[in-house]
Amino acid sequence: MTSHLALMSCLLVLLLSLDKFLLHYLKKRWLSPRISTSPSKSRRSMAAAAAATGGGAKWSETAMLVIDMQMLGWGWLMWDLQKDFVDPAMRSPMLVDGGQAVVPTVAEAVAVARERGIYVVWVVREHDPSGADVEIFRRRYYSGGKGPTVKGLKGADLADGLVIKEGEYKLVKTRFSAFFATPLDSVLKTSGIKNLVIVGVQTPNCIRQTVFDAVALDYEKVTVIIDATAAARPEIHLCE
Amino acid sequence: MTSHLALMSCLLVLLLSLDKFLLHYLKKRWLSPRISTSPSKSRRSMAAAAAATGGGAKWSETAMLVIDMQMLGWGWLMWDLQKDFVDPAMRSPMLVDGGQAVVPTVAEAVAVARERGIYVVWVVREHDPSGADVEIFRRRYYSGGKGPTVKGLKGADLADGLVIKEGEYKLVKTRFSAFFATPLDSVLKTSGIKNLVIVGVQTPNCIRQTVFDAVALDYEKVTVIIDATAAARPEIHLCE
Amino acid sequence: MTSHLALMSCLLVLLLSLDKFLLHYLKKRWLSPRISTSPSKSRRSMAAAAAATGGGAKWSETAMLVIDMQMLGWGWLMWDLQKDFVDPAMRSPMLVDGGQAVVPTVAEAVAVARERGIYVVWVVREHDPSGADVEIFRRRYYSGGKGPTVKGLKGADLADGLVIKEGEYKLVKTRFSAFFATPLDSVLKTSGIKNLVIVGVQTPNCIRQTVFDAVALDYEKVTVIIDATAAARPEIHLCE
Amino acid sequence: MTSHLALMSCLLVLLLSLDKFLLHYLKKRWLSPRISTSPSKSRRSMAAAAAATGGGAKWSETAMLVIDMQMLGWGWLMWDLQKDFVDPAMRSPMLVDGGQAVVPTVAEAVAVARERGIYVVWVVREHDPSGADVEIFRRRYYSGGKGPTVKGLKGADLADGLVIKEGEYKLVKTRFSAFFATPLDSVLKTSGIKNLVIVGVQTPNCIRQTVFDAVALDYEKVTVIIDATAAARPEIHLCE
Repeated sequence: MTSHLALMSCLLVLLLSLDKFLLHYLKKRWLSPRISTSPSKSRRSMAAAAAATGGGAKWSETAMLVIDMQMLGWGWLMWDLQKDFVDPAMRSPMLVDGGQAVVPTVAEAVAVARERGIYVVWVVREHDPSGADVEIFRRRYYSGGKGPTVKGLKGADLADGLVIKEGEYKLVKTRFSAFFATPLDSVLKTSGIKNLVIVGVQTPNCIRQTVFDAVALDYEKVTVIIDATAAARPEIHLCE
Repeated sequence: MTSHLALMSCLLVLLLSLDKFLLHYLKKRWLSPRISTSPSKSRRSMAAAAAATGGGAKWSETAMLVIDMQMLGWGWLMWDLQKDFVDPAMRSPMLVDGGQAVVPTVAEAVAVARERGIYVVWVVREHDPSGADVEIFRRRYYSGGKGPTVKGLKGADLADGLVIKEGEYKLVKTRFSAFFATPLDSVLKTSGIKNLVIVGVQTPNCIRQTVFDAVALDYEKVTVIIDATAAARPEIHLCE
Repeated sequence: MTSHLALMSCLLVLLLSLDKFLLHYLKKRWLSPRISTSPSKSRRSMAAAAAATGGGAKWSETAMLVIDMQMLGWGWLMWDLQKDFVDPAMRSPMLVDGGQAVVPTVAEAVAVARERGIYVVWVVREHDPSGADVEIFRRRYYSGGKGPTVKGLKGADLADGLVIKEGEYKLVKTRFSAFFATPLDSVLKTSGIKNLVIVGVQTPNCIRQTVFDAVALDYEKVTVIIDATAAARPEIHLCE
Repeated sequence: MTSHLALMSCLLVLLLSLDKFLLHYLKKRWLSPRISTSPSKSRRSMAAAAAATGGGAKWSETAMLVIDMQMLGWGWLMWDLQKDFVDPAMRSPMLVDGGQAVVPTVAEAVAVARERGIYVVWVVREHDPSGADVEIFRRRYYSGGKGPTVKGLKGADLADGLVIKEGEYKLVKTRFSAFFATPLDSVLKTSGIKNLVIVGVQTPNCIRQTVFDAVALDYEKVTVIIDATAAARPEIHLCE
């Protein structure tokens, strides 16, 4: 009961503060606040996304951004866990499970996108072994040619079960936002893309920053499919 | 009691999902979650910011960004209120009061910054009367040469009680983030600025986007003084 | 004769090094290497631009950028002349005459653009009195609240005979390129603009940088009308 | 004789139009207008660069950008040659020779940089097999997963004799300028870099755009070593 009140309180506060643009993003959450890995759920989410992006006629103007689905994509948190900044009480396997659990759902969302002719963009972080292109507060994690998602190392690979097909685009980024210091905006706009559907991990950072930059860069509809995103706990999706 | 639990739950969820970088930003909130307009409080906040930015020796490397303190700066929400997207139950004078109440606190924060030789940057939105440089989801608000914060109209002026002094910089922006499509990063970096202290209104949008872009752009310390920011309700500061 | 050979040699060298994209830009120059201030000439140039941008049907997808037509727009050179970097032999009134002479031609080009429904964007430099947003190698020109094209001072006004009409956009920039740290790309793309016609002063710096950024930003056709641009001497248009 | 006059005329015109900033760049050319592949020449050029960047004490604040030294780096021109846009009379082996001849000089310049502790950045173009991230006027060159400098294909490799060492940075770009839509500015500024020395191929496009963006982005000294750059013919270096 208390937990329910907590969520409602949080949603109300959010509702008051966000602009109209973000409402359909919120409404989706409001209606389906639970993370589900059910494939059929994912199809239903895509249908909701279809409605949000203006119906079936517009798939050629829609791209799906698949964010950070690397083996260590959610490993940033694990990495941080090993350091001493997160409260020990929170070091639970749940964290990792959340990331792994989302893989089949993302795979399903991508399959639906491919059926509909949506342009699929795989957004991955890759860093130089020196860490020179990492956020400064994370550089201490890099030494001896190692660190999270270093180019060419195993941690930079896509999670098992996810494959980039011909005609799909792999975008390398170095910050939270997929648009920061990358050619993504050019790739999308010259392909006639006006609407985005976003799936992947780490709602509170990477997905949020990508969503806000997409709005700043004039994409018309930006939809987040929440049952194909993961964060440490379900409530984050409601309450980031 | 329930409300207290709601806030705590929200904070815990947040804590789990944010990177270490944002911790000092969070910690400030954790310790002082109430919005205060008391000048002494503001001085104490600046002292906390001093600690966060590495002590008194670094004021010449610190800038204060004063965000959206225009007469209609928080008017976006009012504007939206008149349209039909926000739930009628939330159309309260509180909203506007929140914005107005913050003015003396911001003035005090600026006064402290000036004493310490911190570089003050006044970030304001100004739009073309045509609305051609507004986010697309807001363009419908512009017609007949009028709309929120149109260049040269009264709504674009700073709130009463706030004045730009010689040697301070006025930056015009057109998006949430003060860094988006503006020379702000150049102005700050060529002035030797490494740390930012942020005050102003609209935490969930403008301040958050500015904070995240500042991190992406490698500013070392980014501090938000929460008793000099306003949103519709205090809880937003805890729970955006 | 020798001079003619010099120009030809220069053109050949250029031809070899430029990409296909720039050819129509070059061809225009090749065919009409003389700067003319004749209004009828300007109409003919617009017709050539029409051909270059795909015919009359596309005017709604074309914008005209009018670059740096401020009273001191070409004053940068004058300003520099007073310093000791340009060879004294070159300090001739010709320099200024070049700038002033172009005004009626630009006015004519703008008139033709308006007739055709082309979106007109006035690009002007405006700087903070402190010089904090000027290129670093020019900051020494700013002190006591004065310097070239300071916001609100007379030097920032448009040259006599040029007026911004309702529905046209005034863009403030702080670097050579009109796209650098400005919302220009957003303003143009959300207005459906795909092609650019450029007129104004200072071919070797501001216009060239704007042209190259426009190419990088995926504008399809970029045309420079050379009889409505000015630089210190006609040959610069051939040989920058 | 005529040729000498042509060059002089071109230089004079350039001199008139360029800003003071570019003068040391010009002066180097004025003094050493011939392309040389002699290693000792390269050492002397580095000494000149040392003077330009403020002496030996500043090497830790200087980076060397090595531009487009890929096997097909100058292949863009060859590629274009096979199409029908360049005058047939100019299809000479000289073009390719120019590119190949520069390799030992660049290798020598890099060796000198390493000795001095200058941070070396290897800037390479790499494109998606689909061509989705190429300039639009070049997309027709991409089909069936092939095209110039496609990621993973041989043409994207560095020219023989050039090797990236540990601690050096490889930057992937998709436009002329090394700064366009890349993390280069962040990598350099967070490494404390204030001055740039530039070597490589294709002066009129890639190097020039990179130089101008570096100026716009507030780098203090930008030096181009002309005997380690190549374009189709030596005169281009004087007269672009």
